[in-house]
Amino acid sequence: MKAQVIVRLKEGVLDPQGEAVSHALNGMGYDTVGAVRQGKLIELELSDTDAQTAQNKVKEMCEKLLANTVIESYTVEILT
Amino acid sequence: MKAQVIVRLKEGVLDPQGEAVSHALNGMGYDTVGAVRQGKLIELELSDTDAQTAQNKVKEMCEKLLANTVIESYTVEILT
Repeated sequence: MKAQVIVRLKEGVLDPQGEAVSHALNGMGYDTVGAVRQGKLIELELSDTDAQTAQNKVKEMCEKLLANTVIESYTVEILT
Repeated sequence: MKAQVIVRLKEGVLDPQGEAVSHALNGMGYDTVGAVRQGKLIELELSDTDAQTAQNKVKEMCEKLLANTVIESYTVEILT
């Protein structure tokens, strides 16, 4: 099965990369673009067969490696 | 409204960052983890009011700035 992890900066954490994108888009004439936030998408192939086990494992991986939980939040979705 | 853009490396394009994550997870004992691919999530605040216009604009932004279409593919989702 596949797992999709999305890691976002927490609200209130400055996102200079997103700001740069926003400014660049405004400069290109896209004046309806306001704030931009950039995050990470991590897609994992798993050989687990039980979705609940997989979900728990991937959450653990997020806590330990994939996200910096001081400044980032994450969501885990298990796809079949 | 909000737009969510996901940018992924195209199939067949090497993803050293994803490979590093995969190896790290295997090394930490998560031996059910196979291939890992890493992509980007870009969330934009838009002051447009029409979803179709917004969708078209964001696609244009992807072609011009947000994605490198030689090696990356993208999906655009408009959220209200």
